[in-house]
Amino acid sequence: MSQDIKQQISGWIDANREYGTHLLQRLVQSPSLQGEEKAVQGIVTEVLASMGLEIDEWEPGGETFMQHPDFYSNRKDFSGSPNVVGVWKGEGGGRSIILNGHVDVVPAGDRSQWAEDPFSGTIKDGRLYGRGSTDMKGGNVSLLLAVKALKESGIRLQGDVIFESVVEEESGGAGTLAAVLRGYKADAAIIPEPTNMKIFPKQQGSMWFRIKVHGRAAHGGTRYEGVSAIEKSMAVMEHVQRLEEKRNARITDPLFKNIPIPVPINIGKIEGGDWPSSVADLVTIEGRIGIAPDETAEEVQAEFRQWLGELAALDPWFDEHPAKLEWFGARWQPGMIEPDHPLMATLVSQFQEVTGTAPAIEASPWGTDGGMLTVTGGIPTVVFGPGTTEVAHFPNESIELERVFRAAEIIACTVADWCGIKEKQETGGMTKDAADKVH
Amino acid sequence: MSQDIKQQISGWIDANREYGTHLLQRLVQSPSLQGEEKAVQGIVTEVLASMGLEIDEWEPGGETFMQHPDFYSNRKDFSGSPNVVGVWKGEGGGRSIILNGHVDVVPAGDRSQWAEDPFSGTIKDGRLYGRGSTDMKGGNVSLLLAVKALKESGIRLQGDVIFESVVEEESGGAGTLAAVLRGYKADAAIIPEPTNMKIFPKQQGSMWFRIKVHGRAAHGGTRYEGVSAIEKSMAVMEHVQRLEEKRNARITDPLFKNIPIPVPINIGKIEGGDWPSSVADLVTIEGRIGIAPDETAEEVQAEFRQWLGELAALDPWFDEHPAKLEWFGARWQPGMIEPDHPLMATLVSQFQEVTGTAPAIEASPWGTDGGMLTVTGGIPTVVFGPGTTEVAHFPNESIELERVFRAAEIIACTVADWCGIKEKQETGGMTKDAADKVH
Repeated sequence: MSQDIKQQISGWIDANREYGTHLLQRLVQSPSLQGEEKAVQGIVTEVLASMGLEIDEWEPGGETFMQHPDFYSNRKDFSGSPNVVGVWKGEGGGRSIILNGHVDVVPAGDRSQWAEDPFSGTIKDGRLYGRGSTDMKGGNVSLLLAVKALKESGIRLQGDVIFESVVEEESGGAGTLAAVLRGYKADAAIIPEPTNMKIFPKQQGSMWFRIKVHGRAAHGGTRYEGVSAIEKSMAVMEHVQRLEEKRNARITDPLFKNIPIPVPINIGKIEGGDWPSSVADLVTIEGRIGIAPDETAEEVQAEFRQWLGELAALDPWFDEHPAKLEWFGARWQPGMIEPDHPLMATLVSQFQEVTGTAPAIEASPWGTDGGMLTVTGGIPTVVFGPGTTEVAHFPNESIELERVFRAAEIIACTVADWCGIKEKQETGGMTKDAADKVH
Repeated sequence: MSQDIKQQISGWIDANREYGTHLLQRLVQSPSLQGEEKAVQGIVTEVLASMGLEIDEWEPGGETFMQHPDFYSNRKDFSGSPNVVGVWKGEGGGRSIILNGHVDVVPAGDRSQWAEDPFSGTIKDGRLYGRGSTDMKGGNVSLLLAVKALKESGIRLQGDVIFESVVEEESGGAGTLAAVLRGYKADAAIIPEPTNMKIFPKQQGSMWFRIKVHGRAAHGGTRYEGVSAIEKSMAVMEHVQRLEEKRNARITDPLFKNIPIPVPINIGKIEGGDWPSSVADLVTIEGRIGIAPDETAEEVQAEFRQWLGELAALDPWFDEHPAKLEWFGARWQPGMIEPDHPLMATLVSQFQEVTGTAPAIEASPWGTDGGMLTVTGGIPTVVFGPGTTEVAHFPNESIELERVFRAAEIIACTVADWCGIKEKQETGGMTKDAADKVH
């Protein structure tokens, strides 16, 4: 790819920082919590349409989708939660690419821990704040700027670019499943989840579990006559921590070497008891467990079930009242791209060209829609984006705007190199195309 | 009191077992959860009115009540939750007595642990089943049968009998507070809470607390970047268990010698986190702490607050993010009757007369409305009833019907002895009363 084109891209992005910042602000200010994604998808559609992409907007649904073995969601009704795909048809003869980003965001959490409204989009010291800024509307803006930079620089690609703005990533990837089932296919895919500008060829999977811990109710004043499900749930949670240690001790893949807990088990919710002065007879805990790239969901489930079964040996209570394990809601399959896949070489080299440094290459500490694209869609996927996980799902979530532009530039160059550029052939003052038309 | 009268009472109760059983069944089948007590009070009113007692039914409310320093409730609106008082005016010259029982019941809890519907009132092997059967509709039936036995045996008491059927005991005694403020007063009181036929001259108090435990949210896949409020709440709960040990180690009152944990701290509810794959940033735990008969609520609060403050020394997280302690909802003051109060002697002696054995005398493992009657009302109160705490607040709560009748007999004899009986003086074939009328 010529230096000329690189400079065109770089120049366009530098000239459009204000546009990109404003666009990210608009996306963040549209609180696209699960079930409330319609408004933000309207903004994405407007941007894609203004570039002349062919728009496909639809609400996921139907038998094939709902009954698919990879359908995982905590809901069955996706009214008001459309997917949006914009297709930029190439001139032919090039490799195609999917650019995939999700617009759904996790809940804001404890509002008192936010310095400002969680959907403010406030800019301060070069960072834009708000739920979803880093996970992953910042990455989505990198994609939109990349496509717009190519389009408005008059670059004509040989391969197709398929821009997927999906719902449901945070609860299991049903949005991307719907896009796969609608027939969108490409030679490779990039997902700009918050990798902190690292390249993640391997993505761990994860899935949600629920454990029901039983006790025996009693009056709180004679609590010794009951068995507290809250106390028993503490024993269960400690036991689960031991499982996390055991699972992580066996991970040797060097791509995980900088990750403190490669495949974490996170207990994210707890609820139990119904009266302060009664002994609780039921506690429900919910969490997510990481699936290593070389594991299947079924293997992880079997290990977890067996591990919980061992509680009976630690405390006879669990022999008669076993902790009940359920799998529900979200699931992300592990995903990967072969280390020698040509997209990896392209992305690494464009990263170096733009930044002057070599990228860090690691395995992801979380699941992404990359698993769905890889396993269900058969599309090798790499995850690379401008956000940072340190602030994802946090109060005061934010993103460094400079990285959004830098990622946009790297992705634009990668797309151009991957899809191929239809060369402008001078023919008596006319480009080849223009010449074609007059012939 | 003559053997003749004792036999009349005993005979009446034996003859009315079917009536008493049916009455208890009706009371249990009326699910008088907090806010839903109106129907069951209708049944109580019907019984009291049929005996000719003067009925006073009212919904607690008003400034004096709501602003009273001993007002504790998780609600401010008592619509649909009336108190009912029935007064049996004595002939004069005797001591008065309040017979107090609450009709509110705690929630049924996990339905799957109940063999039958929680409000079935099913009878099996001499036990009647259902939420509230032991706590304390069985005791209420003992009271109603006691009064009815005296009434229908034609016994005329010298002192007044004030029957109080109150709401709100399970959430802090606002029903009994309302009765105190309405002016009902007596020389002593009996509350037939489930003492398992033991006599409780001392009743521990208790109050509800809430602890908010803070964490720092993060994505579950990089949970090591956050601080789990669920993990921190486990540390808080263990610390609270140590406080329970410390508080109970110093209790030496022999009335507590058979009670495994004299003043328990029960954590009855926990709730935290809002997404399985996020690190929870807030956990709320709610519970009740016992107040020893020689303590004040304020002393207990100060000790609890200081104890939680010591968490910072165990884990620096709590230095910057202290666990926040609140007092809310229910509170029961500790209560007692002097060991040499004449009602104690009367009750002990009638117990022995009816059962042929000496009663067990202990301190109560829970708060009752006795604290409100003692401290706020200035009415020495003893707690004695047919139910058992082993099944109170439990699934499959039940009561042994035989004990309901036995307690009724003991209470009827105690009331007769305490209030005094207006002797029938034979005057030429007429009773003295009849003679009075013809003179």
